[in-house]
Amino acid sequence: MTYEFTTTRTVEFADTDMAGIMHFSNYFRYMESTEHEFFRSLGLSVHQSSSAGMIGWARVSAACDYRAPLRYEDVVEIHLLVAEKRSKSISYIAKFRRADNRSASPLAIGRWTVVCVTKQGGDSELTSAVIPDDVNALLQVAPSGLIPAKGQ
Amino acid sequence: MTYEFTTTRTVEFADTDMAGIMHFSNYFRYMESTEHEFFRSLGLSVHQSSSAGMIGWARVSAACDYRAPLRYEDVVEIHLLVAEKRSKSISYIAKFRRADNRSASPLAIGRWTVVCVTKQGGDSELTSAVIPDDVNALLQVAPSGLIPAKGQ
Amino acid sequence: MTYEFTTTRTVEFADTDMAGIMHFSNYFRYMESTEHEFFRSLGLSVHQSSSAGMIGWARVSAACDYRAPLRYEDVVEIHLLVAEKRSKSISYIAKFRRADNRSASPLAIGRWTVVCVTKQGGDSELTSAVIPDDVNALLQVAPSGLIPAKGQ
Amino acid sequence: MTYEFTTTRTVEFADTDMAGIMHFSNYFRYMESTEHEFFRSLGLSVHQSSSAGMIGWARVSAACDYRAPLRYEDVVEIHLLVAEKRSKSISYIAKFRRADNRSASPLAIGRWTVVCVTKQGGDSELTSAVIPDDVNALLQVAPSGLIPAKGQ
Repeated sequence: MTYEFTTTRTVEFADTDMAGIMHFSNYFRYMESTEHEFFRSLGLSVHQSSSAGMIGWARVSAACDYRAPLRYEDVVEIHLLVAEKRSKSISYIAKFRRADNRSASPLAIGRWTVVCVTKQGGDSELTSAVIPDDVNALLQVAPSGLIPAKGQ
Repeated sequence: MTYEFTTTRTVEFADTDMAGIMHFSNYFRYMESTEHEFFRSLGLSVHQSSSAGMIGWARVSAACDYRAPLRYEDVVEIHLLVAEKRSKSISYIAKFRRADNRSASPLAIGRWTVVCVTKQGGDSELTSAVIPDDVNALLQVAPSGLIPAKGQ
Repeated sequence: MTYEFTTTRTVEFADTDMAGIMHFSNYFRYMESTEHEFFRSLGLSVHQSSSAGMIGWARVSAACDYRAPLRYEDVVEIHLLVAEKRSKSISYIAKFRRADNRSASPLAIGRWTVVCVTKQGGDSELTSAVIPDDVNALLQVAPSGLIPAKGQ
Repeated sequence: MTYEFTTTRTVEFADTDMAGIMHFSNYFRYMESTEHEFFRSLGLSVHQSSSAGMIGWARVSAACDYRAPLRYEDVVEIHLLVAEKRSKSISYIAKFRRADNRSASPLAIGRWTVVCVTKQGGDSELTSAVIPDDVNALLQVAPSGLIPAKGQ
């Protein structure tokens, strides 16, 4: 069981805006790709079949606090933590730091909640579902001391 | 003085993802462009010169709650409200609805806070600043009854 | 029958990059959304059912020549032309101009070719198909004098 | 001196569209980031100071031929080649393949030309410039046998 995952990626030119910094919407792409990389590291896929059909993870909320900007070619370390598990949903936290300054306080903190969904038939109607046992068995909630309080 | 602004836009193919719905990160682009359209409607620009030099609006937090998806070619009505004004920051709310179903409860609700910043010299260092009087004079906080409580 | 379509849109903050101009990849999003708007203006959808099942339009090539940049808040006029029709494919041209300088030579010229495809069953395998009669009957190839030569 | 560079990256969920494949505009982001990674591998930056001030590389044309789609979680190998050097411009080719099928013919081929530009003063006016000697000394044009003919 694990409650955390760390990855790094480099801010691309296309991620920046005319203010010379990473556009605020792109942190959400980074959060999602880190979550997916975390799943792959556990041998899971975010699109896997289960006894209930194909399952996926629909975002029900997403938030980010921005403290200092990221810039082009910054190597970013993203530290993901499992903040909460419920029967049908998982909440994550991601701390963004520059890889050359890992001990600093985060430049940004993302928080988001995904709900397990199944997709029946050919249309795109989604139904919430209990998290499959194999996923549940691999994910652990991080110690509360690692989870920053909101607004901090 | 005004506390609200409404615009519509059509979900583009490039806004969707393989789940067949608008990707969750794109709501943040829609929120920002609505804020900017709001400023233009007031004769303001998000990049304007003031006695303190060029001012801009840096995002310090952004969040979105997703209740039901938006899909390709949906005409979206985005209803922006000024939720809070402080000396240096403004908080906004945006309610997303389908334009063909305006009386329904929102499909998504965005919340974000921007801080007024000035940019000195040629580099990209930003300093927070008091909101210019002309901007302050035009913006009013919406009645609290219009602001949905968080988590609702 | 028609061979052209014109739309305008405003360059958004998220469309720019740290060079202070619209990122070159976003012209391709604008080209696609103009093509789709063109279809809607004809009462067509880019995802429509036909006797052969659901049809769509897969991009087989896309190109853009950039002569002068577009910037934040520029109102862009995009002039789409049908450059070529074959039994299964359509080629388009789009000329980008600032709406406040319509008589100038284009700031950018896009060219792309789409092939009509059908999607069978639940998977995402695509098969090329003859353009449906109703689409074919509405689209005309533009006079060659309106089509800029490549590399010009 | 070198004329090629190879990198891999994984197609992200946000890179896909509702057709279930990578959106065609994202190939251009991948092409640019590969070019930048190539520069970093040579100890260069795409934003470097020279005796002529800050130089950059403005795109003057970009094109991509799409033969078969890329999908979510595909590990893509991107093989960049220097196709042409002129006094002020460089043309590149990029071949996209799945990393698990490297010997196959490319799924997509990108082509683009960048011109060396200098940026004077605080505004964003760009002037074309001769490629700096240190950059020129590191880049070699690939053997013509490696450059696919257009339209092939």
